[in-house]
Amino acid sequence: MTDDDVVYIGNKPVMNYVLAVVTQFNNGASEVTIKARGRAISRAVDVAEVSRHRFLPNVVVKDIQISTEKLESERGESNVSSMEILLSTD
Amino acid sequence: MTDDDVVYIGNKPVMNYVLAVVTQFNNGASEVTIKARGRAISRAVDVAEVSRHRFLPNVVVKDIQISTEKLESERGESNVSSMEILLSTD
Repeated sequence: MTDDDVVYIGNKPVMNYVLAVVTQFNNGASEVTIKARGRAISRAVDVAEVSRHRFLPNVVVKDIQISTEKLESERGESNVSSMEILLSTD
Repeated sequence: MTDDDVVYIGNKPVMNYVLAVVTQFNNGASEVTIKARGRAISRAVDVAEVSRHRFLPNVVVKDIQISTEKLESERGESNVSSMEILLSTD
């Protein structure tokens, strides 16, 4: 998998990221990973669900991983949860 | 699995739910499911991560499922994403 097959979820509307996922599959990707941290995790699940149910009926959720990342900031170190959802045409 | 082994995530602080998860394992549960909908999904991941890393080193994430639920309200039907995280002592 190349970096092109990863969609990072930020604060934009869900449909922006759905479009990115659908475009990658339409361009021939067999797997796309959706990555999010913190509050964007809820949006990542929305992106996966809308992509599959509305646009990509042949795509399945192949794997979901959760983890904790350490963030460095001016006020020191903090932990943030992260999630990766692997969508696949399998 | 009985209903006692499910922790539903709402709008309370993360540690409230962590305490619920840890208590169920300490009371002998071998599996605990964390369930959340909508924006609470991000908090559910926090609960799973904090429970494992700070309190339950022998517990692993055995499975994560995402799905879409239909909610009926006065203004009609709407879809909401949901997630289940299965924690296990396996």
